[in-house]
Amino acid sequence: MDSRRAEAFSDGVFAIAITLLALSLRLPGPSVAHPTLADQLLAAWPQYFAYVVSFLTIGIMWMNHHTMLAHVSRVDRPLLVINLLLLMAIVVIPFPTSLVADHLQHPGAGAATVAYGLVLIAASFGFAGLWIYVVTHAERLGGQAQPEALRRSIPGFTGGLLVYAAGTVVAALGAPLVALIIFGLLAVYYLFEHLPSPAGAPAAPGGHDPGRP
Amino acid sequence: MDSRRAEAFSDGVFAIAITLLALSLRLPGPSVAHPTLADQLLAAWPQYFAYVVSFLTIGIMWMNHHTMLAHVSRVDRPLLVINLLLLMAIVVIPFPTSLVADHLQHPGAGAATVAYGLVLIAASFGFAGLWIYVVTHAERLGGQAQPEALRRSIPGFTGGLLVYAAGTVVAALGAPLVALIIFGLLAVYYLFEHLPSPAGAPAAPGGHDPGRP
Amino acid sequence: MDSRRAEAFSDGVFAIAITLLALSLRLPGPSVAHPTLADQLLAAWPQYFAYVVSFLTIGIMWMNHHTMLAHVSRVDRPLLVINLLLLMAIVVIPFPTSLVADHLQHPGAGAATVAYGLVLIAASFGFAGLWIYVVTHAERLGGQAQPEALRRSIPGFTGGLLVYAAGTVVAALGAPLVALIIFGLLAVYYLFEHLPSPAGAPAAPGGHDPGRP
Amino acid sequence: MDSRRAEAFSDGVFAIAITLLALSLRLPGPSVAHPTLADQLLAAWPQYFAYVVSFLTIGIMWMNHHTMLAHVSRVDRPLLVINLLLLMAIVVIPFPTSLVADHLQHPGAGAATVAYGLVLIAASFGFAGLWIYVVTHAERLGGQAQPEALRRSIPGFTGGLLVYAAGTVVAALGAPLVALIIFGLLAVYYLFEHLPSPAGAPAAPGGHDPGRP
Repeated sequence: MDSRRAEAFSDGVFAIAITLLALSLRLPGPSVAHPTLADQLLAAWPQYFAYVVSFLTIGIMWMNHHTMLAHVSRVDRPLLVINLLLLMAIVVIPFPTSLVADHLQHPGAGAATVAYGLVLIAASFGFAGLWIYVVTHAERLGGQAQPEALRRSIPGFTGGLLVYAAGTVVAALGAPLVALIIFGLLAVYYLFEHLPSPAGAPAAPGGHDPGRP
Repeated sequence: MDSRRAEAFSDGVFAIAITLLALSLRLPGPSVAHPTLADQLLAAWPQYFAYVVSFLTIGIMWMNHHTMLAHVSRVDRPLLVINLLLLMAIVVIPFPTSLVADHLQHPGAGAATVAYGLVLIAASFGFAGLWIYVVTHAERLGGQAQPEALRRSIPGFTGGLLVYAAGTVVAALGAPLVALIIFGLLAVYYLFEHLPSPAGAPAAPGGHDPGRP
Repeated sequence: MDSRRAEAFSDGVFAIAITLLALSLRLPGPSVAHPTLADQLLAAWPQYFAYVVSFLTIGIMWMNHHTMLAHVSRVDRPLLVINLLLLMAIVVIPFPTSLVADHLQHPGAGAATVAYGLVLIAASFGFAGLWIYVVTHAERLGGQAQPEALRRSIPGFTGGLLVYAAGTVVAALGAPLVALIIFGLLAVYYLFEHLPSPAGAPAAPGGHDPGRP
Repeated sequence: MDSRRAEAFSDGVFAIAITLLALSLRLPGPSVAHPTLADQLLAAWPQYFAYVVSFLTIGIMWMNHHTMLAHVSRVDRPLLVINLLLLMAIVVIPFPTSLVADHLQHPGAGAATVAYGLVLIAASFGFAGLWIYVVTHAERLGGQAQPEALRRSIPGFTGGLLVYAAGTVVAALGAPLVALIIFGLLAVYYLFEHLPSPAGAPAAPGGHDPGRP
């Protein structure tokens, strides 16, 4: 199957999952401590914080997903299955995002953040699996074989998995806010650092991308 | 009409339906039996189970939908109508998924699972109708006519319908969890087994897909 | 602007609006009259009926939208604005669909169905405006000018508007179920009857669509 | 990365965000003042008003987003990051739209409208950033360098930001309805006025768009 079709479907799923995050933006309603709407809006900072962390996380996962699939021109059945399992984790992200937003200032913040971390770990396993499959089957999938350059990128990429695991442990130990800051910082880090581009070199300013003649 | 347009619309519907499944992930709220968030998260396993079964089911239906439409290059009005009826069943799937997730441990589990099975049966009828139409009109729709190979695939494909019917009967007889496991196993089975690819042969490793020159 | 981009955006909006219809499938919860889940599922037939009518209606509107835009290869600012106003009506459809589903067996059925009819009338005005604009600006928008054939199709197409108006009046006069059946029959009618295809002739069986060489 | 892929993802996010606006259409339920459904439907005009303003605003932002990215054929990492931050503001729009719709006739209307204005200001900053980046890196991104014509458009475009700021101040000073009307009028203004098209000239009637040979 042409890889563009799998990318279009994945794009749709990423776009919907990232937009559904906005449905988790909810105000708790008036209370004695926050009688006015302005009070409630200011007190809802965990909602905004969780939204920003999850939005950046899914956004960067989308960018990395594209970079990965740009290395191949075809997809086969195993790759589609790995991709489906990866998307199954991505689509879940709005659920623990809501949990974290609703519980960050209440009992249960630790459990919510551990659930959030476990979903990010599952997504990282999906990405690691997809990347390893692409690298080891690049030639078969119509990609330019660059075994060395691609293989070297695996440890760097899967490093994110370890950071998510560390954040989850921090949340389980009773510091969910610290864990969320770690998840957010990792997203910001990935905004600047990334996978090798298809032809192994970034597009030169003013020149043509050699990987896309 | 060019078949790519119908595929793009169908892709969008599949992508949204599969992502809306995440909205059915809801916790029942604190109770005497499950006072903490961690307790509630552990007790919500029917939510996760129903989500995984439905996600894999829709994901595989998406793959099969593509394989079917890859046999033709044009669509006509009857095919669009059959496709619309099929999508009408796909879009409903999140509804019985929620019912099953909410009732699996409560009275009503049987009715919820029967409703789930009936929707899957409706989707299977849609797929059977789409496939039969594609096979019997392949030449008219710009596909390569391979009557024998395609016709032989019909019984194998529509076999899924019988399994869904069997699972629904099992649910009606009082074993909804068994029925759900049957639906899940069928999804896992379809992850590995599939329809003939457009040129009648799978892409050879390292070679070019003969069906897409 | 290339018309494909406007079509892709419109496709996305149609696909999401049609899928959001499933969110209106809700059970009223246990009551004295319907104590079990099975009872509630059977009593919820207005939900299914409203879903089917709206799904077919949006699905057919999507088909007609494509047929219209297939006549042109470019879009200009006025066409984009008309299209945006049309989509504004399409996106609202799930709201009165929910109202009808929730009130069809209760007081308010008339008001809900009138609201439903008004939204369909608004969408019909949008379609009439889009079609008239396409027909009168076909040459400017890169389409093949066929003034006579296209102009003759305007009365037939805008006839749907009159049927929606009649149904809305019927609902206002106290027969909302009859009005809904009218809306549903119109959708079924449009499944079989349609606009002239881009080259003015339907694709011949086994031949090539002359409008898309 | 090819700019079409970033556009497709952005299109999906715009299409979903604009469609989710319909979920904010909710009736408050029966009350002493509005006992019947017809009463409730008539009393819900703030819902419709907020929906129309937000729909036109997102729709026009989508059009401008396309016009901007039509100037380039490639995107680089900084542009993707700016685009992601812009989409983060767009996706939030349904949240303050709901707040405004629910509070416009109640205490909290000012706070809700200020929140709405702040989100529009954030989106405007995102657009200003995206446009400035495109204009100053057009050559590197495969666009036709037209420094003078493009640079001259920056003040006109970013003028919207000032109007959103003014509306937000008006809302904070206690006139939320006036602020909403300002936001709506700005959307209507942008329906007719727009950015320079890719080749620096609008498509002539009956002619070919020189920017897309």
